[in-house]
Parts: sequence; C-alpha cells; structure tokens
Amino acid sequence: MDTNQKNRSLQIIPLGGLEQIGMNITAFAYGDSIVVVDCGMAFPEDDMLGIDLVIPDITYLLDHADKVKGFVITHGHEDHIGALPYVLKELNVPVYATRLTIAVIEGKLKEHNLLDTTERHVVNYGDEISFGELKVEFIKTNHSIADASALAIKSPVGTVVHTGDFKVDYTPVSGNPIDLPRLAQLGQEGVLALMCDSTNAERPGFTNSERTVGTTIDSIFADHRHCRILVSTFASNVDRVQQIVDSACKYGRKVVIEGRSMVNIIQTASELGYIQIPDNTLIDVEELSNYPDEKTVIITTGSQGESMAALSRIATNIHKKVTIKPGDLVIFSSNPIPGNEKAVSRVINELCQKGADVIFQDAHVSGHACQEEIKLIYTLVKPKYAIPVHGEYRHLKAQADIAHLMGIPSENIKILSSGEVLTLNERECKVTETVKTGAVFVDGLGIGDVGNVVMRDRQILSQDGMILILLTLQKGTNICLGGPDIITRGFVYVKESDELMDEMQGILEETVENLQDKNVTDWGKMKNAMKDALSGYVWKKMKRKPMILPVITEVE
Amino acid sequence: MDTNQKNRSLQIIPLGGLEQIGMNITAFAYGDSIVVVDCGMAFPEDDMLGIDLVIPDITYLLDHADKVKGFVITHGHEDHIGALPYVLKELNVPVYATRLTIAVIEGKLKEHNLLDTTERHVVNYGDEISFGELKVEFIKTNHSIADASALAIKSPVGTVVHTGDFKVDYTPVSGNPIDLPRLAQLGQEGVLALMCDSTNAERPGFTNSERTVGTTIDSIFADHRHCRILVSTFASNVDRVQQIVDSACKYGRKVVIEGRSMVNIIQTASELGYIQIPDNTLIDVEELSNYPDEKTVIITTGSQGESMAALSRIATNIHKKVTIKPGDLVIFSSNPIPGNEKAVSRVINELCQKGADVIFQDAHVSGHACQEEIKLIYTLVKPKYAIPVHGEYRHLKAQADIAHLMGIPSENIKILSSGEVLTLNERECKVTETVKTGAVFVDGLGIGDVGNVVMRDRQILSQDGMILILLTLQKGTNICLGGPDIITRGFVYVKESDELMDEMQGILEETVENLQDKNVTDWGKMKNAMKDALSGYVWKKMKRKPMILPVITEVE
Repeated sequence: MDTNQKNRSLQIIPLGGLEQIGMNITAFAYGDSIVVVDCGMAFPEDDMLGIDLVIPDITYLLDHADKVKGFVITHGHEDHIGALPYVLKELNVPVYATRLTIAVIEGKLKEHNLLDTTERHVVNYGDEISFGELKVEFIKTNHSIADASALAIKSPVGTVVHTGDFKVDYTPVSGNPIDLPRLAQLGQEGVLALMCDSTNAERPGFTNSERTVGTTIDSIFADHRHCRILVSTFASNVDRVQQIVDSACKYGRKVVIEGRSMVNIIQTASELGYIQIPDNTLIDVEELSNYPDEKTVIITTGSQGESMAALSRIATNIHKKVTIKPGDLVIFSSNPIPGNEKAVSRVINELCQKGADVIFQDAHVSGHACQEEIKLIYTLVKPKYAIPVHGEYRHLKAQADIAHLMGIPSENIKILSSGEVLTLNERECKVTETVKTGAVFVDGLGIGDVGNVVMRDRQILSQDGMILILLTLQKGTNICLGGPDIITRGFVYVKESDELMDEMQGILEETVENLQDKNVTDWGKMKNAMKDALSGYVWKKMKRKPMILPVITEVE
Repeated sequence: MDTNQKNRSLQIIPLGGLEQIGMNITAFAYGDSIVVVDCGMAFPEDDMLGIDLVIPDITYLLDHADKVKGFVITHGHEDHIGALPYVLKELNVPVYATRLTIAVIEGKLKEHNLLDTTERHVVNYGDEISFGELKVEFIKTNHSIADASALAIKSPVGTVVHTGDFKVDYTPVSGNPIDLPRLAQLGQEGVLALMCDSTNAERPGFTNSERTVGTTIDSIFADHRHCRILVSTFASNVDRVQQIVDSACKYGRKVVIEGRSMVNIIQTASELGYIQIPDNTLIDVEELSNYPDEKTVIITTGSQGESMAALSRIATNIHKKVTIKPGDLVIFSSNPIPGNEKAVSRVINELCQKGADVIFQDAHVSGHACQEEIKLIYTLVKPKYAIPVHGEYRHLKAQADIAHLMGIPSENIKILSSGEVLTLNERECKVTETVKTGAVFVDGLGIGDVGNVVMRDRQILSQDGMILILLTLQKGTNICLGGPDIITRGFVYVKESDELMDEMQGILEETVENLQDKNVTDWGKMKNAMKDALSGYVWKKMKRKPMILPVITEVE
C-alpha cells in the first residue's frame, strides 16, 4: 500500500474474535497512531468445554505495539473491560475512561496485581484526549451502568462517532440524559461514520426509562408489606439498586446486599457518590435475624441463574445465611440474557418449590436503544457511513436496515467481521485486508494452552468416555508379557456390562494373537489394529464412539 | 395398608422421573387394575453428557405387571409417546389411542421391530374402554397435533378428568373444537379430580386459534411474491403445514417438504386424510431447480435450531440440495422451546449472513391453554380436587393458584412429585406412599448402562481432560522397569507446554523414588501417592482438575 495513501485514511479493525459472543475491542489506526476502544471478554459457549472465559487474540496490536497509544473504555461491563488485565500484561499502555469505569477497572487490576504498573486516566465528559494524530472525545450517554460514554474519534480524514452501549433516557435515576445536543453539534460539523449499538435493533419503539422500574418496584413493595422481599438484579446496575434501596427506605425495610460482585461495586459506587444509601439502612446478612421478615429486603446477584451466585445458592438451600421461607417474595429485576433462560427457570422452580412467590416480569428495562432511539441518533449524527456494532449478526443486520431506511446508501453500510480492516475517508470506505484475530481460551490459570485439538478431545471424552488398552511387550522379541488389559472411564457402568467387557477382551486378545502370528512389530500398526477392532465392535454393538487409547509398554 | 380401604380408593402415581424435563407417564390404580396414561421420553439436559434421550424408570409397573391393563395415550408428541418402544419391550400390554396417534406410534414401533408383537387399538372420541374396574373415555380436544384427547378415567370411587395437552380452539383448521359440552356433562355428573395442562398457566388471556397463523402466513406470502420462501415449523403440526400448503397453492408455488420426521408424519397424515394436498403441489427437492425461486416454498424441520435438522443444515451450507441465496425469505413458524433460544439464534445469524431475510415473530401460536381457558375447564368440570400436570414446577404452581382462585380449597389442590402415590376418594385425597421412579439414560443402543458414576467421569473428563501415568514394575521385586510415563488427552496443547510436562515428569520420578526408598509395595498406596503429587501440582500451577489415572503394569 502507498504510504501516502495509507496516511490519508482511517482504519477501523474489530478484534473481538467470535461472531456470536460479544467481546468488544476495536482498533482505530491512523498513520502512526492506534487507539483501542474497549477490551472485553466473553463467557464460553456450551461447546467450549472446561473453559472459564474467552479473551481476544491481540496479535495485531502486538505486531504494532509501538503505535498503540492507549485503551479508551466506553463503560464498565465485562464484555467491554474483562480482557484488560490479560491484555495489559502483554501490552502495557495507558487506560482512559470515566470515573466509575476506571474504579471498576481498578478492582480488576488489583486482583491481577497490575495496579502499580498500569497508567490510568479519569476522563470527564467533554474532555478530548490526544493520541498522536487521533483525538478522542468522551460524550455522556445512558446505559444500565453509570458513567457510560459515547466516543468521538477524530482523525485528519474525519470523525467517527462510536455510541458504546447506550439508550436514550430523558429521566435517568442519577446524572444527566445522554448528551444529544453534543451529538447534534458533531453532526453539524460532519461525521464520517457512525458505529451504533445494535443489541435492540430488532425491537420497535423506545426503551423505557430506568425510572419506570422504580415505579414498578415501589408498587410491588406497597402490595407486599407483610413478607420478606428478595430482589435479584445485575450487580453493576447501580441505579437499579438505588431505586430498590429507595423503596426499602420508604417502607421501613433494612437492606442486605448479597453476592461478592454486587457488594464490591456498590461499595465503590457509594464511595464515589454514585449511590446514596441513608445511614442505618444497610445491615449485614448476619443481622437479618434481628429484624422481622417484613422489615427486610435482600438485594442479590444471580438474576441470570448463575449456579454459584447468591440467589441460586439461596434457592438450592446451600447459602449459609439465607434460607427461603414460605411466603417470601422474590423479584427478578432482570430479563434472562439469551442462553440463560433455562438456568433462570431452574432457579424459579426451586424458589416456588420452597413456597416463595416469584415475580419475574415487568420489573426490568433494557439498557440498550430500540429502533426509534437508533433513528434519533442517525438523525442527529448524520453520518456518511454506517458501521453497526455490538450484537449478533442478526442485530447488526437489523441496524443496517435502519441505516438504510434513514437514507444511507447500501454501499455506505458496512457490517464488519472480526479482523477485517475497514479503510475509510471522505471518498471511500472499504475492507482492504484482514488481520489475524481469534478467541483465546482461559482455563484456570492457563491462557491459550487449550486449543482445537484439546477441545475436540474433551468433546469426545464428554460424549462417550474412554477406553484404555494396555499391552506390555518384551524389548527385542515383542513377546507379549502382559495384557491386553482394558480400563474404561465414563464409558459404561461396568458391573452391569460384564458380558460386554468379556467380549471386548476377547476381541483384543484375538487381534494381538493375529498381530503376533503375522510378526507385526510396528507399534503404530499394532495400536491402530487394536483401536480399529475395538471401535468397530463398540460402534456396532452400542452405537458409541469412546476415545480409544492403546498404550504399549516395553520392558527388557 | 388395609386391603378393604385400599380397594375403595383410586391411586394416581406420576412416574416421569425428572422434575424439569417433561416425561409424561402416570399410573392410575384401582384394586387389581392399573391403566397408564402416556409414556413419554425427554431430551437430555445440558449436564447429561453423551446421553441421547431419557426414559422413565418403570420399576413400579414391572412390580405390578400382572395388574397393568394397558397404555392410553393422549396424543402423538414425543414427550407422551417416545418411551413406548423401550417400555413395551419390558412390559407388553395393549396401547389405546386415536387414529393419528396410533399411526405415529406405529412408525416408532416399526423402527424398533415391535409392530408384530404390540397390540394396538384405535379409539374414537366418545368410546369408553374397560380395563377391569377402571374405564377410560376419550374426549376431543385441540392441540398442536391432530387427534389429541382428554381422558375421563372412571373408577368406582369417582371420575378423574385428565386434559392431556390442550388448548381451546373454536375454529380449528381441521376437525372439531374441543368437546366442551361433554366436559360440562361430566362436570354435572360429578368429577372427583381434574388433572389439567399447566404449560401456559403463567400466561394471562387466551391462546389464539391455529387459524390466525394461517392469516399471518398468507399475508407474508402476499408481501413476498418475488423470492423463494422457506418455512420452518414443528414436524408434527399437520394443521400448520396444511395452512402453509394452502398459501402456497393460492400464490402458485410448488411445495418441498424437507426433514425426515416431517416427511414421515405428513405422509401418514396424508394417507389418513388429516391433510389435503392438491395434486401437482408437492415436488421433490431435486425438482427445485426446474422452477423459478418465486414459485417454490420449502417447508422444513429445524425450527428449534436442532443442529442436524434440515434448516440448520441449510443455514450452515451442509445441506446437499438446498443452498440459501440472498433474497430468500425464511419464516420461523414456531417459538423457541425454553433452552433452545441460543441454538435458534445461531441459525438466524447464519441465515442473515447468507443474505436471507428472516421473520421469526408472529407466525406461531401455542398449542397450550392460557389462564382463561384453564378457568373455563375448571368452570365446566367442577372438580373436587385439582392436580396440576404438565409443565415445570413454576407452571404447576401457577395452575394451583388458578384452581384456588376458582374456589378449590388449598387442601384439595395437590402438586405431585414423581413417585408419590396420591390416594383419593370422595372423603380424602392424600399422598400415602412413594414408589421408586427415576430417569433412565439411553446412550446409543445402551439403555440404563450410563449411571451417575459414568456421568461424573464424563463431567470431569469434559472439563479438564485426563492425565495417564504409566509405571511398569518387576513382579516380586517391585523394581521399576519402565516409566513413570505421562500421556494426556484434553488437558493442554503439549507443544506449548513442554516445561509443564518436564515438571510433571520430575514430580512423578521423585514420588516413585520416594516410594521405592520407603519400600512401599502396595499398589493402591503407590497409585494414590502419584495421583496426589500430580493433582496437587496441577491445581497449584493451573487451577485445573484433570482426571488422573495411574496404571501400574507388572511383568516377570
């Protein structure tokens, strides 16, 4: 590529490796400057066996490490900040974000012992940070966590507006509404491209104000004055917790906060003034027994049915300090994230079985913009190009349809795949190359040591278990000194299947005899022969495909 | 128990082993007669690794085999008939059901070579079958498969009405509306207990008529005259297929039916007259290329995102005969069953990526009654006792609340767990004992040979793989002739982890030396020592818990 040409274009490169699971990390490159927006992790899909979390492959950033000026973070959710501790260990650059976002990030850095080595900058809305030839302005938005930002990424060839995750809330619980006037002003000045949150792009209408949830919760509290109340919600939704606390105070209830992640974030939010909890409202879970049930509220994590979260432990009676009693009211102030429906239902069933009443509808609003809000943003920002972001492909496609409806020509709407380098300026906008990206699996303390082969083995082992064939041969002569012996794990319950084991044993002995008769001494051939004989038999007899592992030991 | 007393009560015993997954099978016992309503299977939960399907443990029926007079089946869905072939092999009694239901069952029996040995009876609505002292009357209902029945189970101590799965459809696509007059008549005569479908008991209002879907589909066809249309729905919803075929005919499109289960059931339904397909409408999938896209419709299975179903194979480009083209319209005439949301979303994403337009809302209605319909049944049947059936605990609880609202005292409402024996007559209704029930896993051709230990091993193997330790000792002397050697599968990608393997090797060698120094010759102790040393190291180093399998071979 002509260097001159390259210097006159901005490049946008999404680096989140997987399509369907949301790791948000996007590089903006202009000349010798690279700025990275967000650095998210993802939770593993069902078929990623044994994996704890997934982080992006940052090969591209490492290859251009000298140009990377820093991370700018839109807000403090895991899918936007979760990979930071892992990535910063390999690429130590400064991190810029609003106050609460930085505080949440600092909690993570502390766990990874990275506080001392990481340069952090608290940014105020309206601030413009310079990263060489790129400048980034932070713009107030609304979302289901406080201090969310849109970004105006300014390059010599034009400005890109990235909404981050957002909704339009004219009456937020705390802070100001989204800074629509500033977005309009940017629109007036000219915006090259809009990268807009697509999560709810399939949904018509507007997302309700967070404040409407407060009204709902308040009326539920009013209707249930004579029982204990538990409310489960997302740990980081500080405004939601504020509203629950407000209702609790109004009806004279003490508040217990349960679940480590919620305790941490509420403490941080409280210290920074993002939540006001009157004195003598919060009590410790141990103090619950000092108050009558109808004077207490327990706010918990676990609204997604996560098996180790507080609410799930309470529902299954393995929580040490809270036990469900008949008559308890449990409110799910949340909707299941796609994929969690069954887990949530399991928790609801457990709660019902223990006599609790459960409210799981209407006590939640989304943190993402619906179609009319998205149209509003297009109307104000008036971008030349539309690059839908955040969401599965179907959601990006839905946003592309909206962009088209708003008058943007099809050829100016780009849905990017991970690793595609979108090169754009006033004259053109096209994918010019593809860089290496991908998903890196984190399993326990191991990062990236579980790849496709290991995963495939786990898959086979999980389906039908394994059969170990042991054979001991004399060195030189290849005379069989022991075996063939069979050991199985995860295959069948052996006591019930003695006949099966006898037949398998017979087949192996026959195979080994055959090999000896034919003077086969090549271990590879011997192993294959035993494996083939056994797998053929097991498939025919049981329609199963366990992992079969022949092991030959040689002794003097 | 006093025999006299026992003979004057009816016993109702749900035998479906699991709470959350629906296997419908319920025994009704009076004196020397047992009748079994339905015989369903269930699909495995996520944590049942490698399991293909789940069937009920029928120990109770086998223990009373001489009394079991037959199976009466309410309708032809898998969760009501799927276990029949497995159960009939152990308990060969006659099966009674309506015409289409018997035809669907016969398809299953054929696959299992049970057609010749199974006594089948086609029942008409209004027929009353005698099973010793019990009589069963079949009553017309509406559901998402034709020929669904409610049952009136009549005993000397009273009648139990079992709705089966049902909805109230005043304008069904084929056949008559649910026989409300007969239910009212039974109510007038006196009903001891009502066992009513709870699936939609949490939903207010009425379920729409199946016919409304036809209207929706017709208008979608009207709006999309210039592209190919694919419609995915449940294989057994014959009325739905009828309506799609009707729209196809109206707009001059040929129809392809794709997916083995749908082809089978539509053929059966067609032969029996449950669906009318005009001549020259159906074409073979190979003939598709002979017609312009806008003159074809493909009706497929796979509406639940099942990975091997036709639509999923089409979406991922592994279907041999149908490929998605930009502009194709795909209609999901279905809602995701809880737990399938993510799989369905994956298919929608694949389709969108290939340029298809996807409609996944509003082209479906449920086959189950909502709250107002359930209230209607209670109003007509006027039972003394209410026994909610079909659904998760939360749904049963919701129906119990409706029953209470309809005037049934709390003590007369019984939510039963699997195996609980409900003993009832005009005077009382209580759980008197509990019999053995449970879930039997079917894996390949094996039935019940995968139990808890095998499942736990698969779980461990799936999470962190396994490490095999091989040690060869001389017989008598216990001198180490070979090893310790290490083989891993599903653990880590070994090339990246040579240092790790070296350290593991070192630890094992040290452990073996130690054992030899101390003259430890007990194999159990030696294995434990190696296992403990390695698992301690791996946990400390990696926070993982692979299965560790020490194998000692002894040679002369």
